[in-house]
Amino acid sequence: MDEKIRSGCPVSLGLDIFGDRWTLLIIRDLMFSGKRHYREMLGSEEHISTNILADRLKMLLDEGIVVKTEDPSHKQKAIYSLTEKGIDLLPILMQISSWSYKYRPVDEAYVDNAAPYEQGGDWDDLMTELRKVHLRPGDAPTVSNGPSNT
Amino acid sequence: MDEKIRSGCPVSLGLDIFGDRWTLLIIRDLMFSGKRHYREMLGSEEHISTNILADRLKMLLDEGIVVKTEDPSHKQKAIYSLTEKGIDLLPILMQISSWSYKYRPVDEAYVDNAAPYEQGGDWDDLMTELRKVHLRPGDAPTVSNGPSNT
Repeated sequence: MDEKIRSGCPVSLGLDIFGDRWTLLIIRDLMFSGKRHYREMLGSEEHISTNILADRLKMLLDEGIVVKTEDPSHKQKAIYSLTEKGIDLLPILMQISSWSYKYRPVDEAYVDNAAPYEQGGDWDDLMTELRKVHLRPGDAPTVSNGPSNT
Repeated sequence: MDEKIRSGCPVSLGLDIFGDRWTLLIIRDLMFSGKRHYREMLGSEEHISTNILADRLKMLLDEGIVVKTEDPSHKQKAIYSLTEKGIDLLPILMQISSWSYKYRPVDEAYVDNAAPYEQGGDWDDLMTELRKVHLRPGDAPTVSNGPSNT
């Protein structure tokens, strides 16, 4: 599953999976933008390319960070959901955001939403909310992968 | 300074700088391994290549995340130090580690040191310690870049 493990260091082992410019943006789309379909993620303002998006989604499925199911409202469309392993990436995104609010030219549109990032506060509530939206009924909260029916 | 800003999103703006497999490993070396010289970082177990290490160190200097000074004990050698902006990356490394301890095959050698990562606890103490080691006397704690004399 892991193409290349460089060492047993926890920082390195994390970066082996999401140490690139795009993977955590896909997670962000799933977490905060309500984007659950391939086409929606493709339309995000960073302009991810189709081949990178397809490649990263496949990796995230293989790693059990994301699951892909049939969208009940559009049988032709696949819907992507975070697993518990994916939802557990939230504190990383929060700390990246917190650093950027301090040191990077964050767009004003994001500043209104900065409170939870900046305070480092309400992550538990947010994670509970994400579990409601992404984990299917019956899934144990510790599920690390799920069946894919598409 | 920023080669390419993809959007004003704080997650994206962070990844524009350190969204790769290597940059945060250099920060890790400076933070936790006491590696302050180029040759020491080159010797880390992930086997970073000379051109990637040189490229990333230059970027980190340009961004004011790291400063380079003359090593007082070896006038020929440069010593790298974290700035406050660099020390503020610690919570990101901690959260990456915390996720890896839960989901990745972390080497036993790291598990003994896992307490602060896992508890998400003593970051303030660690950051205070890093400031003592890396920020030069007289530097304000909010310094974002410093003079380089080599």
